[in-house]
Amino acid sequence: MYTRPLARLIEELQRLPGIGAKTAQRLALHLINRPVTEIEALAQALLEAKQTVKHCSICFNWSAEDPCEICRSPQRDPSLWCVVAEVKDLIALERTREFKGRYHVLGGLISPMNGIGVDQLHIRELVARVAQEKPRELIFAISPSVEGEVTMHVIKDFLKQVSPTLYMTRLAFGLPMGSELEYADEVTLARALEARREL
Amino acid sequence: MYTRPLARLIEELQRLPGIGAKTAQRLALHLINRPVTEIEALAQALLEAKQTVKHCSICFNWSAEDPCEICRSPQRDPSLWCVVAEVKDLIALERTREFKGRYHVLGGLISPMNGIGVDQLHIRELVARVAQEKPRELIFAISPSVEGEVTMHVIKDFLKQVSPTLYMTRLAFGLPMGSELEYADEVTLARALEARREL
Repeated sequence: MYTRPLARLIEELQRLPGIGAKTAQRLALHLINRPVTEIEALAQALLEAKQTVKHCSICFNWSAEDPCEICRSPQRDPSLWCVVAEVKDLIALERTREFKGRYHVLGGLISPMNGIGVDQLHIRELVARVAQEKPRELIFAISPSVEGEVTMHVIKDFLKQVSPTLYMTRLAFGLPMGSELEYADEVTLARALEARREL
Repeated sequence: MYTRPLARLIEELQRLPGIGAKTAQRLALHLINRPVTEIEALAQALLEAKQTVKHCSICFNWSAEDPCEICRSPQRDPSLWCVVAEVKDLIALERTREFKGRYHVLGGLISPMNGIGVDQLHIRELVARVAQEKPRELIFAISPSVEGEVTMHVIKDFLKQVSPTLYMTRLAFGLPMGSELEYADEVTLARALEARREL
């Protein structure tokens, strides 16, 4: 149906998450219609990003520089850290413009079913970093899923050993802003009630 | 928020149709995590498709060869042609496996509002091709929109001059398969009634 190089492009596009056969075909037919400069810009952006963007050796954020922009910034509080599962969570926090500390990206969550244990994540690096840099507070900004809870507690136990006085916190539970109370699940509602604040 | 090469990749991905800011970010963070061979394969597929896939000089289908696979195939009826607006329409017809003739891709539809007239489309090439090859039948597989109707009638008038006996047809109107009669719009229903067939 498609001439071979077009079929190959469709196949490659289909590997992308959330891109099915139909979307891949639409994208390929769109791309083939664009000026060659535009295609080259996309191909080059892909290659350059892959070649130059590496993990920050301190916090494991993605960065073209090492240490990353956040670890190097003198405007960031070096004693307040946020522990996140993935770089996308770091991005979500940066988007709030509320957090002015540093990060530590774990690279995932503990999940024995998927063969992800302590050694597949950047947990030992976090422990060593805490022992050396002695931050004041560590905020766990981790999803309250089974994997998230397990990961937080495993890390907490490790850190208690190297830094017994470290202040560790987690994100608050409660109603999402703009949500309807009647649609909140019971656990969320119970947690929001428990953590009620003075008005 | 994003290190520069990643920001650039996100920007390039966002140019794609149907890819918004969120999806572009998700795709970029996914891609940066993939092995370098996978990124190179995608970049190369893009460049190779753009470099090698051209319009067939006969029917204007996209092809890495000229004439295209369909124009060269001895299994296709050379006297039955289907006129389509875009290559994606040709693909849709090929998917039915019902049409065994050849094609002519116009490259769009007449749309004075968007500055697309007879000369922006492959209409003169169609007229010349009909005059020379004298097909038996021409099927217009064109969307029944205002632009589609105008385009069909303009082409019909041109072709009547060079080939007064050419048999020209258009796709049938009717209910889409699997649709609910009660939801069909009145025009479709009226056309389906008018074109009723013996059971």
